[in-house]
Amino acid sequence: MKIVLTQYDKTVKDRSLTSLKGVSLNKGVSWLHITGKGKEVVEELKSKFDFHTLLLEDLVHAQRPKIEDFGDAILMIVKVIRYEDKQIHTDQLALVVGKTYVLSIQEKTSSLFDQVRDRLNKNNKGFKAGYIAYSLLDSIVDKYFDMLEEVGDDIENVEAELLHRPLPRTLNKLHHLKRSMLLVRRAVWPLRELVNEFGRDENKFVSQYTRFHLRDLYDHVVEIMDTVETYREMLTGLLDIYLSSISNKMNEVMKVLTVIATIFIPLTFVTGLYGMNFRYMPELTQVWAYPAVLVAMLVAGVAMWLYFKKRKWV
Amino acid sequence: MKIVLTQYDKTVKDRSLTSLKGVSLNKGVSWLHITGKGKEVVEELKSKFDFHTLLLEDLVHAQRPKIEDFGDAILMIVKVIRYEDKQIHTDQLALVVGKTYVLSIQEKTSSLFDQVRDRLNKNNKGFKAGYIAYSLLDSIVDKYFDMLEEVGDDIENVEAELLHRPLPRTLNKLHHLKRSMLLVRRAVWPLRELVNEFGRDENKFVSQYTRFHLRDLYDHVVEIMDTVETYREMLTGLLDIYLSSISNKMNEVMKVLTVIATIFIPLTFVTGLYGMNFRYMPELTQVWAYPAVLVAMLVAGVAMWLYFKKRKWV
Amino acid sequence: MKIVLTQYDKTVKDRSLTSLKGVSLNKGVSWLHITGKGKEVVEELKSKFDFHTLLLEDLVHAQRPKIEDFGDAILMIVKVIRYEDKQIHTDQLALVVGKTYVLSIQEKTSSLFDQVRDRLNKNNKGFKAGYIAYSLLDSIVDKYFDMLEEVGDDIENVEAELLHRPLPRTLNKLHHLKRSMLLVRRAVWPLRELVNEFGRDENKFVSQYTRFHLRDLYDHVVEIMDTVETYREMLTGLLDIYLSSISNKMNEVMKVLTVIATIFIPLTFVTGLYGMNFRYMPELTQVWAYPAVLVAMLVAGVAMWLYFKKRKWV
Amino acid sequence: MKIVLTQYDKTVKDRSLTSLKGVSLNKGVSWLHITGKGKEVVEELKSKFDFHTLLLEDLVHAQRPKIEDFGDAILMIVKVIRYEDKQIHTDQLALVVGKTYVLSIQEKTSSLFDQVRDRLNKNNKGFKAGYIAYSLLDSIVDKYFDMLEEVGDDIENVEAELLHRPLPRTLNKLHHLKRSMLLVRRAVWPLRELVNEFGRDENKFVSQYTRFHLRDLYDHVVEIMDTVETYREMLTGLLDIYLSSISNKMNEVMKVLTVIATIFIPLTFVTGLYGMNFRYMPELTQVWAYPAVLVAMLVAGVAMWLYFKKRKWV
Amino acid sequence: MKIVLTQYDKTVKDRSLTSLKGVSLNKGVSWLHITGKGKEVVEELKSKFDFHTLLLEDLVHAQRPKIEDFGDAILMIVKVIRYEDKQIHTDQLALVVGKTYVLSIQEKTSSLFDQVRDRLNKNNKGFKAGYIAYSLLDSIVDKYFDMLEEVGDDIENVEAELLHRPLPRTLNKLHHLKRSMLLVRRAVWPLRELVNEFGRDENKFVSQYTRFHLRDLYDHVVEIMDTVETYREMLTGLLDIYLSSISNKMNEVMKVLTVIATIFIPLTFVTGLYGMNFRYMPELTQVWAYPAVLVAMLVAGVAMWLYFKKRKWV
Repeated sequence: MKIVLTQYDKTVKDRSLTSLKGVSLNKGVSWLHITGKGKEVVEELKSKFDFHTLLLEDLVHAQRPKIEDFGDAILMIVKVIRYEDKQIHTDQLALVVGKTYVLSIQEKTSSLFDQVRDRLNKNNKGFKAGYIAYSLLDSIVDKYFDMLEEVGDDIENVEAELLHRPLPRTLNKLHHLKRSMLLVRRAVWPLRELVNEFGRDENKFVSQYTRFHLRDLYDHVVEIMDTVETYREMLTGLLDIYLSSISNKMNEVMKVLTVIATIFIPLTFVTGLYGMNFRYMPELTQVWAYPAVLVAMLVAGVAMWLYFKKRKWV
Repeated sequence: MKIVLTQYDKTVKDRSLTSLKGVSLNKGVSWLHITGKGKEVVEELKSKFDFHTLLLEDLVHAQRPKIEDFGDAILMIVKVIRYEDKQIHTDQLALVVGKTYVLSIQEKTSSLFDQVRDRLNKNNKGFKAGYIAYSLLDSIVDKYFDMLEEVGDDIENVEAELLHRPLPRTLNKLHHLKRSMLLVRRAVWPLRELVNEFGRDENKFVSQYTRFHLRDLYDHVVEIMDTVETYREMLTGLLDIYLSSISNKMNEVMKVLTVIATIFIPLTFVTGLYGMNFRYMPELTQVWAYPAVLVAMLVAGVAMWLYFKKRKWV
Repeated sequence: MKIVLTQYDKTVKDRSLTSLKGVSLNKGVSWLHITGKGKEVVEELKSKFDFHTLLLEDLVHAQRPKIEDFGDAILMIVKVIRYEDKQIHTDQLALVVGKTYVLSIQEKTSSLFDQVRDRLNKNNKGFKAGYIAYSLLDSIVDKYFDMLEEVGDDIENVEAELLHRPLPRTLNKLHHLKRSMLLVRRAVWPLRELVNEFGRDENKFVSQYTRFHLRDLYDHVVEIMDTVETYREMLTGLLDIYLSSISNKMNEVMKVLTVIATIFIPLTFVTGLYGMNFRYMPELTQVWAYPAVLVAMLVAGVAMWLYFKKRKWV
Repeated sequence: MKIVLTQYDKTVKDRSLTSLKGVSLNKGVSWLHITGKGKEVVEELKSKFDFHTLLLEDLVHAQRPKIEDFGDAILMIVKVIRYEDKQIHTDQLALVVGKTYVLSIQEKTSSLFDQVRDRLNKNNKGFKAGYIAYSLLDSIVDKYFDMLEEVGDDIENVEAELLHRPLPRTLNKLHHLKRSMLLVRRAVWPLRELVNEFGRDENKFVSQYTRFHLRDLYDHVVEIMDTVETYREMLTGLLDIYLSSISNKMNEVMKVLTVIATIFIPLTFVTGLYGMNFRYMPELTQVWAYPAVLVAMLVAGVAMWLYFKKRKWV
Repeated sequence: MKIVLTQYDKTVKDRSLTSLKGVSLNKGVSWLHITGKGKEVVEELKSKFDFHTLLLEDLVHAQRPKIEDFGDAILMIVKVIRYEDKQIHTDQLALVVGKTYVLSIQEKTSSLFDQVRDRLNKNNKGFKAGYIAYSLLDSIVDKYFDMLEEVGDDIENVEAELLHRPLPRTLNKLHHLKRSMLLVRRAVWPLRELVNEFGRDENKFVSQYTRFHLRDLYDHVVEIMDTVETYREMLTGLLDIYLSSISNKMNEVMKVLTVIATIFIPLTFVTGLYGMNFRYMPELTQVWAYPAVLVAMLVAGVAMWLYFKKRKWV
């Protein structure tokens, strides 16, 4: 378990700790970023904070994004998203916002908050807990935009592939993109409600100033949802295109087969006819017979070709 | 008919009964778990409780999950779910919550409540009826999560099968999973409303403490619904993949047929040509004719092969 | 036109009438069941009741189920459903509920209310008009359940047929079931609103006792709607299965054709080759040539067979 | 421009005018039916009425059905529908309802209001403007029912055609019906809102009596919407049937081809075999060889036939 | 950066500026139209106006259309649409409405507002800021109608192409139209909310007169949305038609192949039969044999032709 404590008072201090013992949360506002397994973290928190049992339980289990008001603290569960190797990865992040502290709890180490920490430390003007929580949420939502941009590029690639040379693996890519969007949607829908609720007027941890920023964040979340829905519709459209283009290609193949077979099968029949061994076949003995048959077959072949040409089969 | 009576007073007592005669519900809170056919149970209950006729009727009939407030008692009908042999099984469970008692009525014997009974008996601290009812609901909802996990695994298996080797039986599996999700959805949608209503402020059998837990349970039910909807979309996506891959395979088959037929049918025509028995066919008597024809056919065949190669058919 | 008048006072009296002349509606509550063509019935009613013109007009025309409050009388239009010869039949029934009477008006004779009349007559305890109307609605809703059970069986039969031996007529059955569900849905959706409105607190013709029963009836209607929607989704799922299984079968057929053609067309080409009549074909005169060609063809044929085996085509 | 002025006072007077000059709207209620191009009509109206600029502009442009309250007048825009040559035609009709007048403005001459005028003139009992507007709306809605009946017949015809002999032109008919329903839906959805708003309690031009009739009209509009949705679902169902039946037919065709090819291609190979010109083919000189080959081929052919019979291909 | 300042006082003055320095906004109402890159514009605005940081940030980023009230100014973000080369292009336009000024900020130069400026300058009667903003929005919405008209024509062309001669590129056109509609929908949905909010009663910058016009504008936006949805449904319908017509064509192709193959393959077998070189084939020496075989083959061929004729395959 790793703990990084940042205290925003008149000055800013960053400290790396391994335990919460001896930590004082009285001066200014403290941001505790804890990396560790749920159970372990819960034990540590119990020793310092007087949290509701259900709040502690929520920290251990994976679950839908949600916000819950426990009176003296607000719990928020959000999904942090990464798009790596054409795959969506979601990690759970728990935020606990109290009067003088913000806890952010994550299972795995990541550089998610490096940038936001830098920015906060630089601009320190005695933040409230609500503003710090907003900043963390904002940096998480920014990751969604990064992911959407990459997915957007992938969709365009798949589309280009589809329109020029559809392959079975194009279908797999489509399928994976669709599933990714399903996952993202699941993560982002409850996020909208969460940001909205966090910015409500009744919320005592959020100042008017932060509320303005949360409204802006809310707009961002709505835009993400909007883009996800648009992507989903585009992917559905692409699947239709894929199916149509397979049918089209099959049609092409069938036409080639049909043209060749329809021209040559009757002609082969004619050659078979004069290949029969009947003793009395008067045509066979005529000098003009062979050239005549050749010409007739040529004419028939060309006629059928023209017929297919007319029907736009060749 | 089997009755298990557990009385939560200062101490806990478990008793197995065959009849409700002589049972006193005055001390502490009693949980009566009754296993038996609807009609039989109704007769027994009539002798002890003064229930509304409609409440008794509801116990006999299979129906949608629902909650109904009869003033002195609240009736809840929920579906208990099992996923066995890739099949969803639902059993109806009726909960009647009064001031000093909780009735749970089930048709078939099951070990559903063994765990929750153990836990309640161990932690006994003078429960209210509402908390016992919550505990029973909670253990039922947990079964939904178990089921969803198994179904999730099955969906992944089907997906793997689909992407590597789609077979007709894969389609059947898909179909069964889709139907299972339909059944689960039907059972879980009204459950959400039920938990919400049970946790309402006006409900006199539910303490503030239990209300907190019911809110948590509500979140669980929402998560189940959410997962069911995601599974349904995933299954729909898989069906599209299946259809596409069938079309793809048919395309492959057609191409093989077309390539073979298109190369050999014209060549066979040529052999037929020189197999004709006309007396005057000058080519036949030339020494170079046979090798020339062989070479010509080889060239034609290779040319067509290259053409198909270029069109990516082989 | 046939009229059956049942008067629920201290005693119950059933009378068959052909006209409303001389009928007194002052003692207890009267239930008038009228069978006849709209126009004729309207004329008769005009002579006895002082109904609003729009109420009378509504009796003549076929329309959506609805409830309308005309102050001194409530009009309800419902659809009575039968499932005969795999076909949904709907008949319109009009209920007019006043302070001391209930009118039920139907175009065709049916045994729909025989059972409910028996039950009411037996249990007579001075019913209110509202309760009689509820009883009639209840017996109509019961018919929906009967119908749904039969449809459920038919869906299972179609499903079994589909999974084992899909035929074109299976598709027709599917199509008819889908249309039936469309019809039922159209009849049952407004029914929900109707029952809900009839059971509203402001409704002066409905006692608290009846209101409880109407809530139960409302649950039944919701369950019917729920089942109809589930059936519709199941039928849509079955159509997908049908389409997939047709594609699958076509695939099978194509594979057989392709295997046979791909093996024999090249071999036939070879036989054609040595069937040519060129004078100078050195192979033809060799003793070992014929067996060598036979062996070569056998090897080629087996090789192709094994190739197809490997690709799981045979 | 043609104007028909009907004044409902103690007596009714119909007058055909070409200009609004000198028309007095003080006695009773006047209904002005104007036929003409938007701009021209607007000029004429400006000279007589003191309408809001936006109201006048709305008369000129084609737009969605809507209702707008301009204080001293209510503007309603509705779509008049005709179903001719299997084609939906919509004309715009504008209604302006004031305290003592109703204006109905249409671009093309039509007999739409002939019947309603007759009826109004006959039953004249000093109508209010609201009632006249209702009567006009009612006669427009009746046209929708006529159209739906015809479309219903066409759907049935298409369905019969589909189930017995699906042709490409059946698809075109389906397509046209679908589009027609799209158009009707677009016209009828806002109409519901319009009738609802027109019948609101606050509306000063509508008496309680007319309000009752408007509620009835509202039910009619809802029924039209309901029918349109049902038709749309039926047409979607029919398209699925069409696609399935095409697949089915293709399957049939493929089976015939496969059976014939699979039986004769191997047999033809055998004849090719014994048509080869090798000098040393011992079988050829045997007396029993020819009949033996014939019998063998017959047996092989029959065996394959039976095989296909067993697989239900023939 | 280009700035056009138009001041509506007793007289109207147009001035082209390159900087906001020295501009006075005290006389009448000023409309500032600024063309330039976000950052540059923001710097310029900072020097003149005392805007909220979030408002300035919103000017820099591309985002969904939205309206935001910053107390002393209202920010509106809208999408300006063009349909060029069958492609939807959207540019972002920001409107800032204050008490005495309207700012319109656009990245690229365009002639979008030329017409509206002319009209405003001509009809100047001391406009309020709200009315100018309305006029700008109105001219943007008009562009949507132009675009929809062109798209409507394109849909009709695609439809005609589809019904007469469906080609793969028709599918591409369909696909592009669908995507365009997706983009337009995304731009127009939030616009509705925006216009509605802008016209709210509480909005201090909008007079009753402008409010009337905004209601009209709102109707226009709703009509655009309505048309977009209809187009989307039409395009979906066309895709179904396309898929059906491909299947139909494949069916046609398959029938031709099947008819030809089914007639000639058996006949070719017969010719192969009598082309065999068995020494003892008694038929071969008969004089009548050859004509008899010819006649038999003719009869068989005609019979099969008639059979296919009966099954409507030819």
